[in-house]
Amino acid sequence: MFMDKNFLLNTESAKRLYFDFAEKMPICDYHCHLSPKEIFENKAPENISQLWLAGDHYKWRAMRSCGIEEKYCTGNASDREKFLAFAKTLQYCIGNPLYHWAHLELQRYFGIDTPLNAKTAEEIYERANKAIAEGDFRPQSLIANSNVKFVCTTDDPIDDLKYHKLLNERKLPFRVLPSFRPDKALNINADGFIEYINELGKAADIEIGSVADVVDALYRRAEYFAKCGCKISDQAFEYVPYERADNEELNDIFARAMLGEKVSRRDEDKYKTAIMLTLGAKYKMLGWTMEIHIGAMRNNSSVMFEKLGADTGFDSVGDCEIAKPLSRFLNALEMLCALPKTILFNLNDKDNTVLATMLGNFQSAEAESKIQFGPAWWFLDTMDGMTAQLKSLGNLGVLGKFVGMETDSRSFTSYARHEYFRRILCRLLGQWIEEGMYAYDEDIVKEIVEGICYNNAVKYFDF
Amino acid sequence: MFMDKNFLLNTESAKRLYFDFAEKMPICDYHCHLSPKEIFENKAPENISQLWLAGDHYKWRAMRSCGIEEKYCTGNASDREKFLAFAKTLQYCIGNPLYHWAHLELQRYFGIDTPLNAKTAEEIYERANKAIAEGDFRPQSLIANSNVKFVCTTDDPIDDLKYHKLLNERKLPFRVLPSFRPDKALNINADGFIEYINELGKAADIEIGSVADVVDALYRRAEYFAKCGCKISDQAFEYVPYERADNEELNDIFARAMLGEKVSRRDEDKYKTAIMLTLGAKYKMLGWTMEIHIGAMRNNSSVMFEKLGADTGFDSVGDCEIAKPLSRFLNALEMLCALPKTILFNLNDKDNTVLATMLGNFQSAEAESKIQFGPAWWFLDTMDGMTAQLKSLGNLGVLGKFVGMETDSRSFTSYARHEYFRRILCRLLGQWIEEGMYAYDEDIVKEIVEGICYNNAVKYFDF
Amino acid sequence: MFMDKNFLLNTESAKRLYFDFAEKMPICDYHCHLSPKEIFENKAPENISQLWLAGDHYKWRAMRSCGIEEKYCTGNASDREKFLAFAKTLQYCIGNPLYHWAHLELQRYFGIDTPLNAKTAEEIYERANKAIAEGDFRPQSLIANSNVKFVCTTDDPIDDLKYHKLLNERKLPFRVLPSFRPDKALNINADGFIEYINELGKAADIEIGSVADVVDALYRRAEYFAKCGCKISDQAFEYVPYERADNEELNDIFARAMLGEKVSRRDEDKYKTAIMLTLGAKYKMLGWTMEIHIGAMRNNSSVMFEKLGADTGFDSVGDCEIAKPLSRFLNALEMLCALPKTILFNLNDKDNTVLATMLGNFQSAEAESKIQFGPAWWFLDTMDGMTAQLKSLGNLGVLGKFVGMETDSRSFTSYARHEYFRRILCRLLGQWIEEGMYAYDEDIVKEIVEGICYNNAVKYFDF
Repeated sequence: MFMDKNFLLNTESAKRLYFDFAEKMPICDYHCHLSPKEIFENKAPENISQLWLAGDHYKWRAMRSCGIEEKYCTGNASDREKFLAFAKTLQYCIGNPLYHWAHLELQRYFGIDTPLNAKTAEEIYERANKAIAEGDFRPQSLIANSNVKFVCTTDDPIDDLKYHKLLNERKLPFRVLPSFRPDKALNINADGFIEYINELGKAADIEIGSVADVVDALYRRAEYFAKCGCKISDQAFEYVPYERADNEELNDIFARAMLGEKVSRRDEDKYKTAIMLTLGAKYKMLGWTMEIHIGAMRNNSSVMFEKLGADTGFDSVGDCEIAKPLSRFLNALEMLCALPKTILFNLNDKDNTVLATMLGNFQSAEAESKIQFGPAWWFLDTMDGMTAQLKSLGNLGVLGKFVGMETDSRSFTSYARHEYFRRILCRLLGQWIEEGMYAYDEDIVKEIVEGICYNNAVKYFDF
Repeated sequence: MFMDKNFLLNTESAKRLYFDFAEKMPICDYHCHLSPKEIFENKAPENISQLWLAGDHYKWRAMRSCGIEEKYCTGNASDREKFLAFAKTLQYCIGNPLYHWAHLELQRYFGIDTPLNAKTAEEIYERANKAIAEGDFRPQSLIANSNVKFVCTTDDPIDDLKYHKLLNERKLPFRVLPSFRPDKALNINADGFIEYINELGKAADIEIGSVADVVDALYRRAEYFAKCGCKISDQAFEYVPYERADNEELNDIFARAMLGEKVSRRDEDKYKTAIMLTLGAKYKMLGWTMEIHIGAMRNNSSVMFEKLGADTGFDSVGDCEIAKPLSRFLNALEMLCALPKTILFNLNDKDNTVLATMLGNFQSAEAESKIQFGPAWWFLDTMDGMTAQLKSLGNLGVLGKFVGMETDSRSFTSYARHEYFRRILCRLLGQWIEEGMYAYDEDIVKEIVEGICYNNAVKYFDF
Repeated sequence: MFMDKNFLLNTESAKRLYFDFAEKMPICDYHCHLSPKEIFENKAPENISQLWLAGDHYKWRAMRSCGIEEKYCTGNASDREKFLAFAKTLQYCIGNPLYHWAHLELQRYFGIDTPLNAKTAEEIYERANKAIAEGDFRPQSLIANSNVKFVCTTDDPIDDLKYHKLLNERKLPFRVLPSFRPDKALNINADGFIEYINELGKAADIEIGSVADVVDALYRRAEYFAKCGCKISDQAFEYVPYERADNEELNDIFARAMLGEKVSRRDEDKYKTAIMLTLGAKYKMLGWTMEIHIGAMRNNSSVMFEKLGADTGFDSVGDCEIAKPLSRFLNALEMLCALPKTILFNLNDKDNTVLATMLGNFQSAEAESKIQFGPAWWFLDTMDGMTAQLKSLGNLGVLGKFVGMETDSRSFTSYARHEYFRRILCRLLGQWIEEGMYAYDEDIVKEIVEGICYNNAVKYFDF
C-alpha cells in the first residue's frame, strides 16, 4: 500500500491514464542544473550518501530544520553519519516531497521498498551501497535508463561549452543541450559584476565599454550557443523589471557600475529592462524559448553565505508585486515584434492566477500556447504545488497544450520527479474524468496525456 | 456519466439540495453586460457560431492559446470555419469552465448531449443550427425560458436608457433594469476624458467647470437612472484608491486634466477618491447598492488593442495591495453616514481573505450582510474559484446571507452559469452536511439554498 | 452523524491517530489572552450568554453580518435576548468555525448534543444555564478539566504580574505563565505613547530620555518577567519592519515622538527595528521564544472604535509585502548572534509559502525547528486555514517538529479549539497514510502526533 505501483493513482481512470499513456513516454528534461562535465566524465558515486547528500540543499534544509548540526549536512562527518542523520530527519518529513522523492529513488534505482527511517537506516545504507557497487550508477546510464531523450543544462554565456561538444561527439541515447543563462550580465549591482563583464568581453572577443557592447557580446555568445544546439534561454528575477531609459542614461548607469558604484534599484531596473528587451529580440530571431523564473529571494542568511556560498539551502520565496511590470515588458517585446516563445515560472503560489491569465494576453499563431505557464518549481514542486499549477492552467489557459515537467535538479536520480509529476497529472485528470467533468475519448485523452508528458515539449522547443 | 443530470452533485445531500431547492429557483441576474438594445430588438442569431463566437472573448482567448489564427477568432473566416476552430480548441480545454459552459449550453438550449470536439464538430454545427432554425432563440425567449426574473445591465451615466424605457412598456415575464457605471467620469487619465466630460455635461444639462460640477452632473444622471428603475451602481478599479485633497487641489487636478495633461498617479487617486466619496453618499440616499470590481488589468497588448479595441480578450489579473486604501475608503464613507450597501468583487484569489474579512468591519442593521463578498467573477468564475469564494465567505462571514451569483456576461445563453454555480454550491454544502459538519434541518437548509440562489438577492437589492 | 465522536475523522487511520494518540494528550496553550485576574478570582459565569457573548468579538461580527442590531451584541439587551439573537445568527453560519466551536463547547462542557438554531435556542438556553448552575464552570475547573497543563497569558511589560504570583502560590494542576508583549513601547505613533513610556519608566524605575533608556527599561522588565516564569515574548506587526538608523537619528525620532509629533512611516520603522533588534538579543539570552504575529489591520471602523474601543470585532486582514524586511530582520539578528527561537504567524494565507520557506533560512542546532511556522490563527483558525498551514509546513518544512496549536482566545471554554485542531491534524495525516503517502510505523506516527499535540511545545519552550 505504501507507495506501491498505484501510488497517487486513486481512481481507475487515473490508473488507465498513467499505465496506458504516461508511464511509457520518454522524458524531455528541458531545464536542469546537471553538470555537463559530470555527465561527460561519467563517474559512479562511491555510496548513496555521496549521491544524495553531497550537493542537495533540499535535504540539508530539512536536516537543519530538525536541529541536525551542520557537520552532518555540509561538514566533515563521515558519509555513513550523514546518511543516518538524513534518515532520522526523513521520518519527520511527513507531507514533504523529499519523502516521496527519496522513496521513489530507493525503489526505482536501488530496488529497495523498505521505508527509510532511523530504524532502517543502517540496513538501507548497506543495501544501497551494494546496489551501487554491483550496478551501473554512472550518470550516462542513469540518464539513459530513465528514458531521458533531452537534457538541457544551464550555462553561462561565457562558458566554452567544451563538454557539450564532447558529449555531442559521443553516440548517446540522449542529447545534452546547453541553455543560455545571462543573469550575471544583468545583475549590475552584484559583487563581481565588473570582473564578469570583462570575462564576457574576452569570451566574445570585444572590448566592452557601453551597454551596446554588452548586448553585442551577448549576441555573439548566443550565436555560439545556437551553433552548439542551444534552443532555450533562462533568467531569474525577484520580479521582472520594466523601467525605460534612453541610451545616454543607460550608458551612464553602466559606466557608474563599472567604476564600482552600487546603482539605485530604479537604475538597476532600467539597465536590466534594456538588456532583456534586446535579448528577447535575439531569442526570437534564433527561434529560442525564453524561460523566466520569478520570485526567489536568495542568500537570506549572511552568516551561512559567508560560510558556504550560494545554493546551499538559504533561499526562500519573495512576495513582490509582479503583474504590471511583467505585462509591460511582454507588451514592449510584442510591440517590437521581438517576443519569443516564453515560459513564465513563479515561486510564490499567490501568483498562479496572475501568470495563468498573463499568458492569454500574448498568445499567437506562432506556436501552440506560445506563452506557457511553467510547471510548479523548486519550493512549489510538491503534490499540492503541482496540483495547484495544473488547476490554474486548466481553469485559465489550455492545459492540453502544456509543455509539462522539468526537474530543475542537480542530481542524476531526480528523474523520479517526472514520475511524481505524471502520477499527479493522471490523478487530477482521472478525477475529472470519473466525475463526468471531461468526456473520455481515448484518442483525445491519449494525445493530451502524452502531449503533456513529452510530445508538447519536443514540438514546442523544436527539438 | 459525462455531465449527466447529477453533474457535480457527488453526494446524496448535494442531489437533494439541488433538485429539491436550487434547481427550481428563478434567476436574479443582478450584474451583466447584455445589450438592452439587443433584448429589445429581439433578433434570433443566424447560427451557433454567431451566438457563441461573435462577441465572446473567453472563447477567443482559448483559441489563440491553441495557436489558432486571428481570422478564426475575430476575422473574416466563415462562421462554419470559426465553429470548427473553436471545437478543435475545446477538446484541449480540460479543466476550463468554457468546456462546461459550452456543454451545458448545448444540452440545455440545443438538446445536444454529444461531447464537442474536432470529430463531432461538423455534426454538432448542423444540429445546433437546425435547432436555431426550428426553435425560438430570440433573446427575450432565451431569457424567459431560463426562468430569469431580473436582468441588470451595465450602463453609462450619459445613456438615455431609451431601450430600458421601451422594454418597460412591454409585458415581459422579466424586468430589465439599468445599472449606473460612472467609470468614464472617474478615469481622468484615460484617452477621451475631456470629450466624455463634455458629453456628461450635455446629458445632465449643465456646464462642467469644476469637480463639484462633475458631481452635480453625476447626481442628476443618477436621479434619472433611479427613475428608470436603477438600484445598482458598478465601478471597476485595479485597487480602490484613497487619497484625500481639498477642493482647491481637486479643481486644479481636474483643470489640468481638462487641458489634456496626464496627471500623476497620486493626483488621479485624489480625484477618484473625491468623486467616489460623493457618489457613495448619493447611492446611500437612493437606497442603491454599490458594486466594486477590483483587480482587472486591462488591454495588456497594445498591438491587439490597436487592432481590436477593448474587451477582446487581452485583459488579465493584477496583484496590487488593496487592503489599506479600501478600508480607509469604506471607513470614510461610514464616518460621513454615506456608506451604501456594497458588494466587493476581487479578480485575484489571493485577495479572498482580505475581502471576506473586510466585510465584517462595516456591517450594520441596515441590511442582512450589508457589505457582501461578491461571487467569483470573470477569471475566477470557475469551479475552483467559486468553491474558494464560497469557502472564504463561509469561513469568515455568514454564507447563509450571500446574494449569490450573477453572469457578468454578454451572451443570452450564459444563464447556464447560474446552473453551474448552483451545482457547485450544492456540492459544497452537501459535502459539509454528509460529513456531519452542519446539522441538516430541512427548513433551515431550504432557506439557505433558496436564499443564496435567488431570495437573498431580491431582498437585498429591494427588487 | 452531525458532529458525532468521529467528527472530521473520515478514514480509519484518522480515527486511530486521534483516539490512540491525540485525544489523550494534555494541552499546552502557549499563547492566549485569558485574564490572570479572572483565573485567580475564579468566578463562574451567571449564564451561557455571559460566558459566550460578554467578550467574544467573533460572535459579535457574525451577528452584525446578519443585520442584528448592536444592542444584542455589546448593548443593553438582556442576556436571554442576546443568546437568542446569536442562535438565530448561528444557523446561517454554515462553513464557519464558530458553528463548530459553539457545538463542540455545547457537547463537551454542557453535555448538549442538540444543534443550536432559532428553534432550539430557548430550550438550549435553559439547559445550558441549568448545567452552569448545577456544575462547576469556574475558570480553574474549566482549565483543569480540559487537561490543560500550561496557560501562557499575554501581558504588558509594565504589568506587575500580581495575579501570576498569586496563582503560582496555589497548588493548581496547571501552570499560568506570563508572556511579554511590548507592542505599546514599539508603536511610537499610537495615541498614548508618551504616557506609556512614562509608565514604563516608572515600572522599570528609570527615567526614560532616550532609545537606550527604553531598551534598558524593557530589559529590566523582561528580567522581572523571567523571574515570574515568562519564557515567551509576543509582538504584532502589519509587516515586520527593517530600516536601520544610527543612535543619533533614533534619539531624534524618539524625542520628536515624545513631544507629540507623529513621525513618518519610515522613522517609525527605524525606531521599531532598533528596539526589536535589541529585544531579540535579550530574548535569546533569556532562552525565550519570540512570537511574531503578522498581518492584522486593526480598528478599521472609526465610528465603532469611538463607541466600543479596540478588540470589538472591527479588525481584518492586511496584504502588505512582508518577505524582504522580515528576511533582513531575522538575518540581522542572526549576524548579531541574537536570533532567539522564533515563531512566525501570518494572518493572510497568501503568505503561507513565504513564511513556510523563510523558516528554513535560519534554522540551527539550537533547537528542533528553532524557527517555527505558527499555527493558523484568528481569521485563519478554520478548518481550511489550519489544513492549509499544515500542508504548507508539511510541504516546505518538517511537520513532525511543529509545536502545534494555541487558542489565542479570551474564553475559558475555547479549549475545544485544540480538539478541533487535533481532529483536523489527524484527518490530514490519516488521509496521507491511507493513500500510501506515508509509511505507517506505530512508534514514529505516535511520536509525531503526540509531539504536535503537546510534547514538541513543552520541549521547545523548555517548560
